[in-house]
Amino acid sequence: MTTEAGNKEFIEHILNQRKKRAMAKAKLCLGIDLGGTDCKFGLVDEAGTIVRQIKHPTNLSGGPDGTLDSIAAQAKDLIGSDSVVSIGMGVPGPMSSREGVVYEAPNLKGWVNVPVKKLLEEKLGIPVALSNDANAAAWGEYWVGAGRDVQSMILFTLGTGVGGGIVLNGELYCGPDDTAGELGHMIINFDGPVCGCGSRGCLEAYASATAMRRAVVAGIAAGIKTRINIPQGEETTFGTRAIYDAAEQGDVFAVEVFRQAGFALGIGAANVINIFNPEMICYGGAVTNAGEWIFGPLRATASANAFNKPASRAKIVRAALGNDAGLIGAAGLALRDKTLS
Amino acid sequence: MTTEAGNKEFIEHILNQRKKRAMAKAKLCLGIDLGGTDCKFGLVDEAGTIVRQIKHPTNLSGGPDGTLDSIAAQAKDLIGSDSVVSIGMGVPGPMSSREGVVYEAPNLKGWVNVPVKKLLEEKLGIPVALSNDANAAAWGEYWVGAGRDVQSMILFTLGTGVGGGIVLNGELYCGPDDTAGELGHMIINFDGPVCGCGSRGCLEAYASATAMRRAVVAGIAAGIKTRINIPQGEETTFGTRAIYDAAEQGDVFAVEVFRQAGFALGIGAANVINIFNPEMICYGGAVTNAGEWIFGPLRATASANAFNKPASRAKIVRAALGNDAGLIGAAGLALRDKTLS
Repeated sequence: MTTEAGNKEFIEHILNQRKKRAMAKAKLCLGIDLGGTDCKFGLVDEAGTIVRQIKHPTNLSGGPDGTLDSIAAQAKDLIGSDSVVSIGMGVPGPMSSREGVVYEAPNLKGWVNVPVKKLLEEKLGIPVALSNDANAAAWGEYWVGAGRDVQSMILFTLGTGVGGGIVLNGELYCGPDDTAGELGHMIINFDGPVCGCGSRGCLEAYASATAMRRAVVAGIAAGIKTRINIPQGEETTFGTRAIYDAAEQGDVFAVEVFRQAGFALGIGAANVINIFNPEMICYGGAVTNAGEWIFGPLRATASANAFNKPASRAKIVRAALGNDAGLIGAAGLALRDKTLS
Repeated sequence: MTTEAGNKEFIEHILNQRKKRAMAKAKLCLGIDLGGTDCKFGLVDEAGTIVRQIKHPTNLSGGPDGTLDSIAAQAKDLIGSDSVVSIGMGVPGPMSSREGVVYEAPNLKGWVNVPVKKLLEEKLGIPVALSNDANAAAWGEYWVGAGRDVQSMILFTLGTGVGGGIVLNGELYCGPDDTAGELGHMIINFDGPVCGCGSRGCLEAYASATAMRRAVVAGIAAGIKTRINIPQGEETTFGTRAIYDAAEQGDVFAVEVFRQAGFALGIGAANVINIFNPEMICYGGAVTNAGEWIFGPLRATASANAFNKPASRAKIVRAALGNDAGLIGAAGLALRDKTLS
């Protein structure tokens, strides 16, 4: 081989490598976070960055097929002329990631045993990976969010209900039926109030936005004086914000409502610390906007009730990705599946 | 090559293969289960079968070094002229399997930061793998016991205290500090009785032999009529057997003591089902001798308080290896380490 030929080969090799790297960088996945109210879409690259995103109200007319038709059209719109290697979709309800079927979704009327993966792949011609929405959020936070530097992380999502997701040794743990991580239905007081699930004293019965709203309404009905200002007509829907505003003004009752929720979350955290010895416990969802009013009692209760060694290991933090955790995580799980296959 | 030479080579090949197989079969590991009262030794083969075993009272004189000297001598005795590839030792207390150090052992006086792996390797010249005793028992049951046909299994050990171990996707999950699986200190009633760990309402405070004994003593002190016959001088040590005998005779109070323990264990099982979606929950330890008096309410409470899908997945069973689970599991973990390295 002449030197000239050798040089040419070398240059070609370099150019090919660059091309491969550029292609790798351009690998995009569509993340979808399907909720009962909104459906979020995001084009996510391999670094976990959202390139473009959009939110649409979930179309609940026409049953599952109507919803999926809308989703397919909205997905095509967002993808445009880009090339997408896969679609990751987080769904709110019991499902099978292996079979790609949603068994039921309490917030999506008529959704029973829907083969979402098959239907959406037919409509879009792109491989679809299904995941539970809380698991997707946990994977998002682990991948590029609060947990990006740890190997084991437990996520609690604090909203209307309390959900969870589990990442151990760098792997999402879902269990054989994808139902693992129902951390909101960990019973912390078997003599406690009845939870939406029918059991008594689940964490969710103390620490969801719903539970806090009920505590406020009950307190006011019992004659407790408070600065909590419930906007007219929002008696059954007002959020943590109203309680927060009052707490910030020094309202004793508002502070106590947060303290009780924080205490319950701290008991749940202590349990998770003693069970998992995790590096991090991460909290997402609107309720976390209450900040130290909740995190203060949470941390104190966790460290008082867990063993010292694992308690000092576990960082207790707020999630970093906000409302995007679900779609980023769903995309990440789909990209990972793509990488593995 | 002549046919004769070919034949000779073929025969040699077969003989070598047989020799290798025989050697593989002969691969033995010494399992040690160190307790505060007794120390159990067993030569365990790769199929998890105990070839020979012996039990000695734990020598607590002379501190850690005295104990380890005795263990080394007793190990040599049991090994005899056999060849042992590794030693697996389960220890009762916080420890590091990576560093081979026991941080503390409440039942072994003076054991603080003892480099057991290093010391025992110096005394015996055989690689030592250290594990927590409950984790070792979980691995034993998973490897060749009740969980041999499943991939995810949670073990509860019910004795003086309540311990636990976690096997997920065929791997023992210990956490970064080897403290994962402290299932006895899962809080199931934050308003409950104070546990030995200082928290209120841990599972252990309801379902350990100690908790049941206290319930019996308190009931008798309060004037409850019962057939439970506490042997003289055993007021603070009597076991579940005395309660069992009375329950079998139809004693209402004895049945109620077991029902309450079974209920608490059922709440713990429901939590574990909602958290892990395991294929199996396995119960070991002397308390399980109470049989259906405890397992009846346990199963009913678990299925009433967990989600249906994972509840129907989780088999609730008694452990299969009895007192040998710890030493078999410790040996199995050591053999696995040996295989991996």
